[in-house]
Amino acid sequence: MIIEKINHTNDVKKLSKDEKSILCSEIRDSIIHVVSTNGGHLASNLGVVELTIALESVFDPLKDKIIWDVGHQCYVHKILNGRKNELKTIRKIDGISGFPKIKESKTDCFNTGHSSTSISAAMGMAKARDLKHQDYHVIAVIGDGALTGGMALEALNHVGCTQTKMIIILNDNEMSISKNISGMNTLLTRLRSRKNYRRTNSRGRKMVTSIPAVGKVIAEVVSKGKNAVKQVFIPGMYFEEIGIKYLGPVDGHDIQEMESLFEKAKDFEEPVLIHVLTKKGKGYYPAEKNPALFHGVSPFDIKTGKVSSKGKTYSHVFGDTLMQLAKKNQNIVAITAAMRDGVGLHSFAEKYPERFFDVGIAEQHALTFAAGLASNGMLPFVSIYSSFYQRAYDQVIHDICLQNLPVVMCVDRAGLVGADGETHQGIYDMAFFRIIPNVIIMAPKNFQELKQMMEFSIELKKPVVIRYPRGGESSILMKSHVLHLGKAEILEKGNDLTILGIGNSVSKGMELSSLLEKKDFSCEVINVRFLKPFDWKSIIKSIQKTKKVVVIEDGTIVGGLCTIVKELLVDYGLVDVVSFYYALPDQFISHGSVSELEEKYHLDVDYIYHDLLEVLEKK
Amino acid sequence: MIIEKINHTNDVKKLSKDEKSILCSEIRDSIIHVVSTNGGHLASNLGVVELTIALESVFDPLKDKIIWDVGHQCYVHKILNGRKNELKTIRKIDGISGFPKIKESKTDCFNTGHSSTSISAAMGMAKARDLKHQDYHVIAVIGDGALTGGMALEALNHVGCTQTKMIIILNDNEMSISKNISGMNTLLTRLRSRKNYRRTNSRGRKMVTSIPAVGKVIAEVVSKGKNAVKQVFIPGMYFEEIGIKYLGPVDGHDIQEMESLFEKAKDFEEPVLIHVLTKKGKGYYPAEKNPALFHGVSPFDIKTGKVSSKGKTYSHVFGDTLMQLAKKNQNIVAITAAMRDGVGLHSFAEKYPERFFDVGIAEQHALTFAAGLASNGMLPFVSIYSSFYQRAYDQVIHDICLQNLPVVMCVDRAGLVGADGETHQGIYDMAFFRIIPNVIIMAPKNFQELKQMMEFSIELKKPVVIRYPRGGESSILMKSHVLHLGKAEILEKGNDLTILGIGNSVSKGMELSSLLEKKDFSCEVINVRFLKPFDWKSIIKSIQKTKKVVVIEDGTIVGGLCTIVKELLVDYGLVDVVSFYYALPDQFISHGSVSELEEKYHLDVDYIYHDLLEVLEKK
Repeated sequence: MIIEKINHTNDVKKLSKDEKSILCSEIRDSIIHVVSTNGGHLASNLGVVELTIALESVFDPLKDKIIWDVGHQCYVHKILNGRKNELKTIRKIDGISGFPKIKESKTDCFNTGHSSTSISAAMGMAKARDLKHQDYHVIAVIGDGALTGGMALEALNHVGCTQTKMIIILNDNEMSISKNISGMNTLLTRLRSRKNYRRTNSRGRKMVTSIPAVGKVIAEVVSKGKNAVKQVFIPGMYFEEIGIKYLGPVDGHDIQEMESLFEKAKDFEEPVLIHVLTKKGKGYYPAEKNPALFHGVSPFDIKTGKVSSKGKTYSHVFGDTLMQLAKKNQNIVAITAAMRDGVGLHSFAEKYPERFFDVGIAEQHALTFAAGLASNGMLPFVSIYSSFYQRAYDQVIHDICLQNLPVVMCVDRAGLVGADGETHQGIYDMAFFRIIPNVIIMAPKNFQELKQMMEFSIELKKPVVIRYPRGGESSILMKSHVLHLGKAEILEKGNDLTILGIGNSVSKGMELSSLLEKKDFSCEVINVRFLKPFDWKSIIKSIQKTKKVVVIEDGTIVGGLCTIVKELLVDYGLVDVVSFYYALPDQFISHGSVSELEEKYHLDVDYIYHDLLEVLEKK
Repeated sequence: MIIEKINHTNDVKKLSKDEKSILCSEIRDSIIHVVSTNGGHLASNLGVVELTIALESVFDPLKDKIIWDVGHQCYVHKILNGRKNELKTIRKIDGISGFPKIKESKTDCFNTGHSSTSISAAMGMAKARDLKHQDYHVIAVIGDGALTGGMALEALNHVGCTQTKMIIILNDNEMSISKNISGMNTLLTRLRSRKNYRRTNSRGRKMVTSIPAVGKVIAEVVSKGKNAVKQVFIPGMYFEEIGIKYLGPVDGHDIQEMESLFEKAKDFEEPVLIHVLTKKGKGYYPAEKNPALFHGVSPFDIKTGKVSSKGKTYSHVFGDTLMQLAKKNQNIVAITAAMRDGVGLHSFAEKYPERFFDVGIAEQHALTFAAGLASNGMLPFVSIYSSFYQRAYDQVIHDICLQNLPVVMCVDRAGLVGADGETHQGIYDMAFFRIIPNVIIMAPKNFQELKQMMEFSIELKKPVVIRYPRGGESSILMKSHVLHLGKAEILEKGNDLTILGIGNSVSKGMELSSLLEKKDFSCEVINVRFLKPFDWKSIIKSIQKTKKVVVIEDGTIVGGLCTIVKELLVDYGLVDVVSFYYALPDQFISHGSVSELEEKYHLDVDYIYHDLLEVLEKK
């Protein structure tokens, strides 16, 4: 096994060409094995095996800075940099992360997780290097999908203008999470379609010197007859026009060819972009065939490629319900940002292609585009993961809520998401949305209530947020009354203790109530339903009766439901009430399964039950 | 006076060529007169007089949708659309807004204020039109500066790909708020430099039909000898490459030429961009000469162009202090996003050009670029207006705070900003920053304390937010003790009442205390200093003594200092405390002077004093 020779950073440099080729197979086997067991990002990692080996054969990760955009394709990098034995713990609690983490290794020089950050970060590192008169390379590896993100384009502009010496590897696999659709993609398609890749000779010397400086070959040929000014240009004009040299495209599965090009890129004193063509899922047929399915995947059977069914999810219910609503209401449109399948819009997109918009990795545009549609009479449902709404915070405030426009913002993956870890936990949205005037915020306790809330949101004609978690509903049966704006739902009547839950945490309240009833504590379980406007009337009434309130939420303790209840107690002078709060602490929450994390952070029913019992029995 | 003929939308269409020319002068006079009295955006409005007249001569603002990006250049539009008599009330409380407002007129079809939103909004409107099989034009008017904003580029990509029929007017005045520096600018410079503008003949018919469809003229000429593939292209390739037709450039002060081009643009069934060259400040020499000074300007003397001095501001103190700190510490760099002069970095930029970065209108990139610098040993001070940090919320969370990087985020224009109104009020930052783990949040009570906080932040080696208001410090003299992390400062000792203030509101607490002392109430005035970590110890100690607490802040009541105090009272069981809260309500706050707004929202000392006195005297 060649992989036995890979123990430390830079060991890969000692391998021969043939050994590297064998290593690729061994790494693929290793990754397929681990991901089939742990779940994780498969297709993207299989696509960058040769690219990573070529990069780390040419550059020194202990000295040079390599930033992996998004970062879910870092498994090969982790194997090459001292973590091949830890790979089996990836995404597990206390195991290594599925993303680069500065805490894990010096070779993980910048944390990533969200898309499109790498060029900005790399430029910062490169400028720091230059200001300190240091000498090493800074490399951003960014996918074609991530390049549609506005901040990557902002960064390209700045890099081009300042002529900061750095290397951008464009890992072009013709798709982001879902199929990438944008003008940028049209451009890349044209570049890709060149039949003959730019070829280097065996020593790769001549090629690079033939790349002309920006503008040098741009000879103006004014054709007065047609009123059209024509110019001669080289491909990659898009990049060259904004001041970034373009090399490629190169076959991203040909290690030697990439190594030659990377060696040459070292000589440039200006920013250079290398266009590398890779295939997602490379080397594992089921993933090559269906890379979207094997993007972020649950455990699967290696032989058949059959993925363990996760059962019905909130995302499915969202998608199905929207189809039903759209049938009745011609004004409904659906918008997402490169998460079509993840948010459950696959069928909608097929059934209503004209009313479905996947804008690519472009959350800012997604929300203001929705505002534009809404201002002109449509009813947009936007579905985006909780942690990615952070990207569109200004657009939600400035374009949607300030104009009080009827956009329904569905927040998928709200609460703990588990294995993807701290960059993806959806635990801030309640806090950051609730600050905004005009917005209505709801969270359903189960599938049935999600349907109700979606129907209800149509009538509201206001900005609406509906947040729901990753995965399925609780097995606890709960009735669901008709919705009234800003009214909570009393699920169980009781006299000793008020239990407040919202969304995911309502079923916990029910379980808790069952346990406490056995100890003769009569609980009033309230499904808060609306974080905003908040039903202070019903809740105060209950608290005044029980004099004790328990609040459970799957978000940060700072600024969400717990905070609202504390405000309420002070604002209404409920001074003789004993209150208990269960939420996530004010810190970033690392990876692990949701149940492990709930246990760790004392959000599991068992902990809450015993914690409360101790106090209640003393009274 | 020709302007007397302009009373309703579309009246401009009835004017002759010569009358329009006279109207331009009259409108300029009117705007110069009003802005010299009220303050406002001068240079940008003077630049678009002809452009607005040409647009509204060709399109119908009652039917077509014209979206003005940023929107501060809407004065001419407001004059042409029924508001010429209200112009004198612009930016005044209860007067018309300095930005487009859907509430003011049907012809203001979409609110703007922040940059780079217009293409997204216009695309939404255009898609709504098409889905409803309606027939009218949608036009986004966007500046070259705004085009560096990531969301505008996201939108261009999407428009190009979907081939949505719409018109984008690129109002190219070669600068955004400060001098625009980016790769995009390099590109535009090249387009601008074409000596001969695209000329239309008198009827303007032939020109447009000669613009070829995308790609049609792109003939590949492969030059094997040099390994370079060459293509023939038309200018505006950048736009054409991503699927948007490009027309221009055209002289933005030639109404007839623009009208011809706009008429032609109506015939396109695909997205088209018209490159219009305008001059900021056109027609008023002082503004032409110094457009940055006359961007957003205080009242000034029309004859001399002399602007009323606003005196020393927090921004000046920030800039001066950073110069001093940078002299001693080579690692300090300064970053802003097209607000160099506004945030006080003019001198820094001249003295330390290599350590100064104006990234253009690109807040997302600015913050992650800062993270990259910090991760590689530099100490970046970023200065951006409060309401624009909303654009970089994810980057603050994901790139800076998650990695716990030492970036000092200076929040200028925090609190009420006054005349710019609801899109610019900096009243949410305390609430949205405080949710984030790891961040330290401070606010200085005066200039001296801003200096102290900036010095102190260098030692912290953590993400730091320092927020301070627009304009100058309070005239109230206050001593300033040494800073300790997370420690509040007791400014006055007292026994009857604890007064908590932060930043701007501390001096209000002092004034209030003086007034109440005269009525024999002994006040303990505490400068909170750190919103996070919060000094619960000192504050609880004081509250336990006085049993009464007053909280004053210049932010929203939802999620800021008031909320923190309420949490504190509950968390520490301070049940017998009477508390009073003065903050801005949970709604968007319109324009007016800061003092008028404070009075309106009961944040003035006089109101607070009488309000409290009534309660205190009853006890």
